Amino acid sequence: MTERIYLDWNATAPLRPAVRAAMLAALDRVGNPSSVHTEGRAARRLVETAREQVAALVGAEPGNVILTSGGTEANALALGPFIDCAGGRGRFNRLLVSAVEHPSVRGGGRFPLDAIEEIPVTPAGIVDLARLETRLTELCGAGERALVSIMHANNETGVVQPVAAAAALAHAAGGLLHVDAVQTAGRIPCDIKALGADLVTLSGHKLGGPQGSGALVKASERVHLADPLFRGGSQERGNRAGTENVAAIAGFGAAGQAAGEALAADRARMAALRERLETGLLAAAEGTVIFGQGAERLPNTTMFAVPGHKAETAIMALDLEGIAASSGSACSSGKVAASHVLHAMGVSPELAAGAVRLSLGWDTTEPEIDGFLTAWRKLVSRLSRGVKRGLAA
Amino acid sequence: MTERIYLDWNATAPLRPAVRAAMLAALDRVGNPSSVHTEGRAARRLVETAREQVAALVGAEPGNVILTSGGTEANALALGPFIDCAGGRGRFNRLLVSAVEHPSVRGGGRFPLDAIEEIPVTPAGIVDLARLETRLTELCGAGERALVSIMHANNETGVVQPVAAAAALAHAAGGLLHVDAVQTAGRIPCDIKALGADLVTLSGHKLGGPQGSGALVKASERVHLADPLFRGGSQERGNRAGTENVAAIAGFGAAGQAAGEALAADRARMAALRERLETGLLAAAEGTVIFGQGAERLPNTTMFAVPGHKAETAIMALDLEGIAASSGSACSSGKVAASHVLHAMGVSPELAAGAVRLSLGWDTTEPEIDGFLTAWRKLVSRLSRGVKRGLAA
Repeated sequence: MTERIYLDWNATAPLRPAVRAAMLAALDRVGNPSSVHTEGRAARRLVETAREQVAALVGAEPGNVILTSGGTEANALALGPFIDCAGGRGRFNRLLVSAVEHPSVRGGGRFPLDAIEEIPVTPAGIVDLARLETRLTELCGAGERALVSIMHANNETGVVQPVAAAAALAHAAGGLLHVDAVQTAGRIPCDIKALGADLVTLSGHKLGGPQGSGALVKASERVHLADPLFRGGSQERGNRAGTENVAAIAGFGAAGQAAGEALAADRARMAALRERLETGLLAAAEGTVIFGQGAERLPNTTMFAVPGHKAETAIMALDLEGIAASSGSACSSGKVAASHVLHAMGVSPELAAGAVRLSLGWDTTEPEIDGFLTAWRKLVSRLSRGVKRGLAA
Repeated sequence: MTERIYLDWNATAPLRPAVRAAMLAALDRVGNPSSVHTEGRAARRLVETAREQVAALVGAEPGNVILTSGGTEANALALGPFIDCAGGRGRFNRLLVSAVEHPSVRGGGRFPLDAIEEIPVTPAGIVDLARLETRLTELCGAGERALVSIMHANNETGVVQPVAAAAALAHAAGGLLHVDAVQTAGRIPCDIKALGADLVTLSGHKLGGPQGSGALVKASERVHLADPLFRGGSQERGNRAGTENVAAIAGFGAAGQAAGEALAADRARMAALRERLETGLLAAAEGTVIFGQGAERLPNTTMFAVPGHKAETAIMALDLEGIAASSGSACSSGKVAASHVLHAMGVSPELAAGAVRLSLGWDTTEPEIDGFLTAWRKLVSRLSRGVKRGLAA
């Protein structure tokens, strides 16, 4: 088999070499970080070193990092009605989420379903801040408190959201802001203070760490989660019971450090590759639409469609050519349902049905981009003939 | 440094060689099991193979295995008021747990704290079935439905619980039984049908798999968890959203298979080693008490105390001698609080303060047991002189 071209980094990224080494070193030791003996204390040190590395990636205090089994768990932990803040204790009556959030945020965590409201996005895929402000003002006037959850960048389109502005609106209305930064940490600057967020979700495997690692990061120790998701042992300062996954945590820390150190260089390199990719895409087929093209986007993500083409057909054909691409987020790519993100952006169901997502990583090369474009041009030519003959459906 | 003697397998176990190999193979691939491309499908196969291996360990159908990030998450998922069963939908008003359950069960998952009741245990550490029956009858008469959670064997004393009898009582009262089998799977037979349990919790790292892996296993597809802990993607048939931790899951599967295959031989060998250990312990110090000695116990676990000795002193002294032992469960061993398990068994706080837990594994050798006993005799002699001089406290 020839070398594959992996262009689905937003679904999951290959392990970074430093991560693999850190994980192997941890796997070859035995130790429960809660044990007081030598083995336990060594495991504890691995966990605390990783916590510092993860904290550094987002400019947080290590003590405010709650290590979880991944981004979905961190979102589930964040999205609960009971969060104390700044000495006051309050119950959140409402959860406001953007219409393009990941399913684990749209699900609303522990909020009752009728307490969850969606804030629409513009055709460019950017959350409608005016609508957010109006709704927050209404709720505030009615004496209700809102938790707001806006992702840092969308997993499908890569569109970066005006998180700091959303934070200001949430705070002005007595609310808090949670930011799902799963797709941005390690790719673009993601400083918790600059974001203005009170809670930030991170995922290890999106930045070259292991699956099964993630974190919910608090902006300050004054943000207190009053109702942990896992009750039991006193791990993670009582915020998350359960034996720590030491190897995954060590790998997550190593990934955070490596991604942080390489961020500026990787970002520039990926942006150049993405530019080359999009230029090629637009030239390959008439009418090609790149979603969110006018907006600020992640440097590694392109979601596009060619009118009349079906994404499933393209993904399977690319796969046969040795290329891994996606028809949207991996969580829903097994389903036939169209992307809720494109729907929220007002994209027609017909065009959305052709949406292909390509996502690059630090290891992506120019020959890989060119290899993809060659395959794509071949495919477009074949599919276009099919469209003309009415066989594309 | 000389070779250490690790006698804390109930806190966490070293990786089995087959597990390490399975994890490395998985870590060196990239792929999100929800992706439809070649990489994704390969990851999916690893997950489904592991699911079959885990299912086989407890005699369940693979489709009834919900993979989680560990035992604590599985317990949190199991212990919720909303479980449909056998076509009927009902809300559980009560959660009855034994007084010796792990903190993650005593915490009661998503039950309100005032809905959780503890059923006492006998001085031997066995759940009082008469009390359980009485309480279930009362609740049933009052039209209330109870979820019962009784562990298969206790993590501190190793005492095996009469789970099948508890299941019969729970079912007769219209309730369900959840069994935390974290310490038994792979050590003694743990067939979900023989246990009579409706839900069983497993943990990977207790049986030589990786930390960060576990499962909640359903006895049949008729047991339906109506309120998942993580909402979002449709992974684990909607029971547990979030990208699967492929490497940990592959390791968990390999651990389940290896532990299952070696169970009979390992069990006999550990029981013989434990016998040697306890004979040596009883001979080493007058008045040594082995907790739960009269009850059926796990073949690998001994919890004991010598009157007048402090566990902390012993654990630290043993550690300096190269031996990893525990003063109770790892989750609470960092705390000074006495064991709730021994308290429930009616052990005096003074004696409980000296409780040391030794737990063996498939890799434990006779020279290690003898090495421990030599160190212990030396320690007892030193500590006893201290006791006589009034310095032990």
